[in-house]
Amino acid sequence: MDHKQSLDALFKAKSIAILGASSKAGKLGHRVVENAKAMDFSGEIYPVNPGSKEILGLKCYKSLEEISGKVDIAVMVLNAEECIKAAEEIARRRDRIGDINGVVVISSGFSEMGDETGRSREKALLAPLLERGIRVIGPNCLGIIDTYHGVNTTFEIGNCPKGGVSIVSQSGAFAQSCLRSTEALGTIGINKFVAMGNMKDVDVSELIEYLGDDARTNVIALYLEGTKDARKLMTTAAEVTKRKPIVSMKPGKTELGSRAAQSHTGSIAGSFAMYKGAFRQAGIVQTFDVPEFYHTIAAMDKTPLPKGNRVCVLTVVGGPGTICIDELMSSGVAELAKLSPETKTGLKKILAPTANIGLLDGYIDMTGSVNEEIHHEVFKILIADPQIDAIIFITPPPTFLDAELLANKIVSAYQSFPEAERKTLLSVFVNGFSAADCRKILEKNSMPTLEYPDTAAKVMTNMIRYSQYRSKNSK
Amino acid sequence: MDHKQSLDALFKAKSIAILGASSKAGKLGHRVVENAKAMDFSGEIYPVNPGSKEILGLKCYKSLEEISGKVDIAVMVLNAEECIKAAEEIARRRDRIGDINGVVVISSGFSEMGDETGRSREKALLAPLLERGIRVIGPNCLGIIDTYHGVNTTFEIGNCPKGGVSIVSQSGAFAQSCLRSTEALGTIGINKFVAMGNMKDVDVSELIEYLGDDARTNVIALYLEGTKDARKLMTTAAEVTKRKPIVSMKPGKTELGSRAAQSHTGSIAGSFAMYKGAFRQAGIVQTFDVPEFYHTIAAMDKTPLPKGNRVCVLTVVGGPGTICIDELMSSGVAELAKLSPETKTGLKKILAPTANIGLLDGYIDMTGSVNEEIHHEVFKILIADPQIDAIIFITPPPTFLDAELLANKIVSAYQSFPEAERKTLLSVFVNGFSAADCRKILEKNSMPTLEYPDTAAKVMTNMIRYSQYRSKNSK
Repeated sequence: MDHKQSLDALFKAKSIAILGASSKAGKLGHRVVENAKAMDFSGEIYPVNPGSKEILGLKCYKSLEEISGKVDIAVMVLNAEECIKAAEEIARRRDRIGDINGVVVISSGFSEMGDETGRSREKALLAPLLERGIRVIGPNCLGIIDTYHGVNTTFEIGNCPKGGVSIVSQSGAFAQSCLRSTEALGTIGINKFVAMGNMKDVDVSELIEYLGDDARTNVIALYLEGTKDARKLMTTAAEVTKRKPIVSMKPGKTELGSRAAQSHTGSIAGSFAMYKGAFRQAGIVQTFDVPEFYHTIAAMDKTPLPKGNRVCVLTVVGGPGTICIDELMSSGVAELAKLSPETKTGLKKILAPTANIGLLDGYIDMTGSVNEEIHHEVFKILIADPQIDAIIFITPPPTFLDAELLANKIVSAYQSFPEAERKTLLSVFVNGFSAADCRKILEKNSMPTLEYPDTAAKVMTNMIRYSQYRSKNSK
Repeated sequence: MDHKQSLDALFKAKSIAILGASSKAGKLGHRVVENAKAMDFSGEIYPVNPGSKEILGLKCYKSLEEISGKVDIAVMVLNAEECIKAAEEIARRRDRIGDINGVVVISSGFSEMGDETGRSREKALLAPLLERGIRVIGPNCLGIIDTYHGVNTTFEIGNCPKGGVSIVSQSGAFAQSCLRSTEALGTIGINKFVAMGNMKDVDVSELIEYLGDDARTNVIALYLEGTKDARKLMTTAAEVTKRKPIVSMKPGKTELGSRAAQSHTGSIAGSFAMYKGAFRQAGIVQTFDVPEFYHTIAAMDKTPLPKGNRVCVLTVVGGPGTICIDELMSSGVAELAKLSPETKTGLKKILAPTANIGLLDGYIDMTGSVNEEIHHEVFKILIADPQIDAIIFITPPPTFLDAELLANKIVSAYQSFPEAERKTLLSVFVNGFSAADCRKILEKNSMPTLEYPDTAAKVMTNMIRYSQYRSKNSK
């Protein structure tokens, strides 16, 4: 079995044994069973617990040995000492039957403890598994998800929207927060999800290589605290970023931040400056705050990369427009689009005399006196302008517009162009969640929405920078 | 009438004439009438429009002259040329009856146009008003709000939650977005709201002085693009920040950002570096991204300032904890608290053996195995520790905890201490809006919640920095 096949065995598992499954609602071992069922998984789920006969309608097994069907992967939700015994049990079954190709160890109490007990436990856990070529995710992790195959071994995430983002994270909680904090609007759609935990077997480089070849993954979202083999990561990433973006968030700019990381996943954060330089060279998109990370991955999945750096900022609200332009210009990567004469003439015909059409070239403040239909027409004019590569649209939206109609007018203007002619479009709704009605419609049509004008500027900068990298480095 | 009294006349108006009131739903002139009624205003509202008899149940007047009762302020929702005529009408009434002490000009089409037409219109508008000592807000503004007096002259904001934040903004839309994007959670509570627009009479310095003396204003939130009299602003601000915080957001770090500002409010942004230095000297809290601004003003209103810089980061989730500490340490302002021996012993008794209690001093990762009651006990231990000045609590929260019970356990632990002993507490719910149930309870109890761990670190840094400034500069 090569690397790719061995990871396929995890993400495309057809049968999952859950060691430490519990019949008690609220317990981790109960949640794992619940979530394993949450995505309409069509394979077999085998809860294992000597004390239960049935869990959530599934037959519960006294031991791994008792399961007569084939077991593709095992999930451990046990205490640390029990995990060691379970690993031995898995090894015995593997020697006897030859199944179980992967193990997800959710349990903690290993090397992340920072003491000798933890480290020696981890060795005892891993030895019997790795000797047999059984792939291990974790320990000390949230688990894995494959939305298209319905595989879910997590204790925290139930169903989640399908999409083109695959998350690879050393923090389960952080990865989960991407999903949960954006789920109400449908911002981020997931393909695969891996909380790697202590990363003692399957590591970040291998996962990135795997996802690089995964046709359904459009964007790889990476949260990394540190890796022992940074060189391997950079070599792998440099290949993958020629085909698809890797978007990263990496703490460790301060010494205490690095030490916090170490006490979390036992990983050495390494020099931040070194990582920063290496990431840039490898074409990894680097984000420096949490909302920038969330929205960069969502946008790169949903809207096309800009073909150039000429951005038009379209707004009905001057202040947020100013904030956006100020942030957009600060990187030196983007420039404001020079509107074509046809665009200016066209806009003057339909906008109010008080509208600001390119007083600052590339910046349009339609002012409050616009209805839904005018939005539609303006978008058609701007998308048709060959001098514009990308658009940031900023609106509250005004309370006197109909949210649904406005959204549909923007969607239909956008979709009136063939896919190849559609431009990068980020829509900022400064009223945030209060604009949920409008935003959900755009998101459903694969048009990314945000709430902060400066975050949108950072996302756009990331997209332009990556687009420039790609055109230089792609084969 | 001194300055303070003349502004009181606006915010404590007991009768409001709306020139350009409209009976047509959706029109600006209709929305202004609607919003004027939205806050249970107990005074008189006089819609004025020659074409209507009644608007939203209120008698509509053909002209200002026709109103027999006293008129404290007039709001203009007219086109620019009509505004000039209305100003003359106001002047005539003032000469005849002596009422109308303030005018809010919502209309645009003046100096922000950047052309001679706009500038000369503005002069014609202002002359008859200012000659008579009538105070003018705007033109080109969203209007004003005083939640405690029920005054609302805006076309976009209906009712909004009462609180201790007063917003002074050169962008109505940006000020509004503070309210609208946080309203679903009750994050920001408002006292007064002023969208200053072109700021041709009542200016930012005067408003800051006024709010500095306003007992119900705990925090002044300032969005500034530029002011002609920066020296006056700094002198005023330096006095006010001895008593209460001014939190600012100011674009203009790039040349195009400055020019966007100029095309928005006609103001010259000035040198960003100059403003930055002057703001710091005047004790103004400077924020550099939108979520930082929103949450700094909310936190400073709701939770006490830290008495020192020793922060404890309490979490159940390692990754976001690491991100928070990394950002917190990057400013050099905060340090991690050294937990007292009693705290460590106390926590060890109640937390799981896998919990990370001060492996990195001041950082506690409780891990997933904590229930609601343990949260309660942990908070009591930490608030009692004399070596801790402030706490950042970070949680998804775990889906297997009861949101309401968890929130109430945290609230009751916090409130079990007398007010003087309560510490600065920021609670980060990384699941964002998905944790709304839990967050609303905390917010209602004046305990600020956030969604991004790095934003929380920035907010905490701002609070520590301001607390240090205050202790050095207060009388």
